[in-house]
Amino acid sequence: MRQAGRYLPEYRAIRERHTMLDVCGTPDLAAHVTLQPVQRFGLDAAILFSDLLLPFVPLGLDLEYVAGEGPVVGHPVRSPADVDRLPPVDVAEAMASTAATVRMVTGALGSIPLIGFVGAPFTMASYAVEGRSSRTHARVKAFMYTEPQAWHALLGRLATIAADLAALQVGAGVHVVQVFDSWVGHLTALEYRRFVEPHSRVVFDRLHALGVPSIHFGVGTGHLLPHLVRAGGDVIGVDWRTPLDEVATTLPGVALQGNLDPALLLAPRPVLEDSVRDVLRRGTAAIGHIFNLGHGVLPETPPDQVQATVDIVQAWSSDA
Amino acid sequence: MRQAGRYLPEYRAIRERHTMLDVCGTPDLAAHVTLQPVQRFGLDAAILFSDLLLPFVPLGLDLEYVAGEGPVVGHPVRSPADVDRLPPVDVAEAMASTAATVRMVTGALGSIPLIGFVGAPFTMASYAVEGRSSRTHARVKAFMYTEPQAWHALLGRLATIAADLAALQVGAGVHVVQVFDSWVGHLTALEYRRFVEPHSRVVFDRLHALGVPSIHFGVGTGHLLPHLVRAGGDVIGVDWRTPLDEVATTLPGVALQGNLDPALLLAPRPVLEDSVRDVLRRGTAAIGHIFNLGHGVLPETPPDQVQATVDIVQAWSSDA
Repeated sequence: MRQAGRYLPEYRAIRERHTMLDVCGTPDLAAHVTLQPVQRFGLDAAILFSDLLLPFVPLGLDLEYVAGEGPVVGHPVRSPADVDRLPPVDVAEAMASTAATVRMVTGALGSIPLIGFVGAPFTMASYAVEGRSSRTHARVKAFMYTEPQAWHALLGRLATIAADLAALQVGAGVHVVQVFDSWVGHLTALEYRRFVEPHSRVVFDRLHALGVPSIHFGVGTGHLLPHLVRAGGDVIGVDWRTPLDEVATTLPGVALQGNLDPALLLAPRPVLEDSVRDVLRRGTAAIGHIFNLGHGVLPETPPDQVQATVDIVQAWSSDA
Repeated sequence: MRQAGRYLPEYRAIRERHTMLDVCGTPDLAAHVTLQPVQRFGLDAAILFSDLLLPFVPLGLDLEYVAGEGPVVGHPVRSPADVDRLPPVDVAEAMASTAATVRMVTGALGSIPLIGFVGAPFTMASYAVEGRSSRTHARVKAFMYTEPQAWHALLGRLATIAADLAALQVGAGVHVVQVFDSWVGHLTALEYRRFVEPHSRVVFDRLHALGVPSIHFGVGTGHLLPHLVRAGGDVIGVDWRTPLDEVATTLPGVALQGNLDPALLLAPRPVLEDSVRDVLRRGTAAIGHIFNLGHGVLPETPPDQVQATVDIVQAWSSDA
């Protein structure tokens, strides 16, 4: 998950003076914010501070981050003509600042690994079509059913961009790439297989060819996990809804990431401690387990609860 | 699901002149709106037009419906003292207009059955604590973990109110009651069992004692279905994420309701037709199946797509 965020006072101090797009697009700022939680908490890995919609800028979709609402797309993709109109994007050129950020961060991190960050084709397409975050994803589903050819053209474009961006981050030095398909849990398995899986696979195949491990993450994907595995990823991210030992039983041989409910960082310390240890214990049922939250850190989280979580996980790891 | 809604021009015409609370609280209006979709589409059953938060009015929580946002609670429940302060509620007196609506509707419907409508304790509590619809449900989860005694007191109050309201509707003539636990899919199975299940059971036990069948509905509950069954309900509502034949395999002997994705009513007619028949075919794997959408009708749905859906289902039923 993104580690830096509004729950950190030092992050809020940066965001008071700079927009989201400024932070992501300025290597000094993005590197600084990437390092904030690593320095504060002594984490075992860093994740690139980024946003999955950054490619919308060179795509001319007029991306903006509106306070209290999140990303808003000024020129959403609503028709086959809108898809045809998308300009070619040279990712290495358009996203050069991301590569520069990766080089700065890896230099500062020394032996601590850096996780890269790209959006999966479906979740990018959902924002592109809906124009903002959606509860129902009705418009994007209507688009895929009504204009299947334009849909596949759109996903094809976004898959190439995601794969190019992942490769750019790998070339600049990231050690792992996490692919965020945050909203894919709204689809049925049939929809996923027909409209999404071939395009997600393009991203994972590229990472596989580069010899770099990948993490495949979504929320509310309990019903899709076997399909996510098939699309690719060396590690599958699981949200908090399904215990890791249950997932390990149905998906033997798959390494897992997760899956503490972020809301538990708002619970009293003994409840938090028991819950973290429960996740660690259940994670031993998988062939590999990366401890993480099941979704992003909530803005109202007290930083000392994050520190307590990190301490418990590191004590467990050194005992193991 | 609620059948009337913004997708119907005759419903919008009513809502232009009356607030949500006015419609729900005025038997003439509530009955009129309940009957609108039955008259237009020739449905096999009607569902009472209501809202799961209506009991917040006698509870003094200052409920309001804000255009474009939904329900907003002016006095949310944030502390044990807030729970203690909740006034006693005589449901039969406070919700007398609901009983009057049921009597008017059943009189008009003749042999068409009427489904009653109550909110489940967790979903009511989520709104009461969060103050509005929430993406993360962080505040309500923090409350249950931090103040477990006050939580159980709150859920106990809401369960009694829901059971009383269900009984009131049964006394006035509804034939079935659907219990909406719309947001419960955000919880883990452990949280559900510890913090919710005993309270939901109070509602279903009351309906069972009254000899009236009940439907237990939630969204994103694939990981909770066995627990929902244990809490009660003669029929379990399933959202669109899991095919009904898969649910029937893991929950043999349970009647199911669902589960067409509401977004499919925005798809081209042949796709809609295939999808409706697919749901009907898969539903035959269960010991009983009530065709329905997996969640509410989307506001952008063309009414003729609802008519097409009804026609396919009725043709299938008369063939069967």
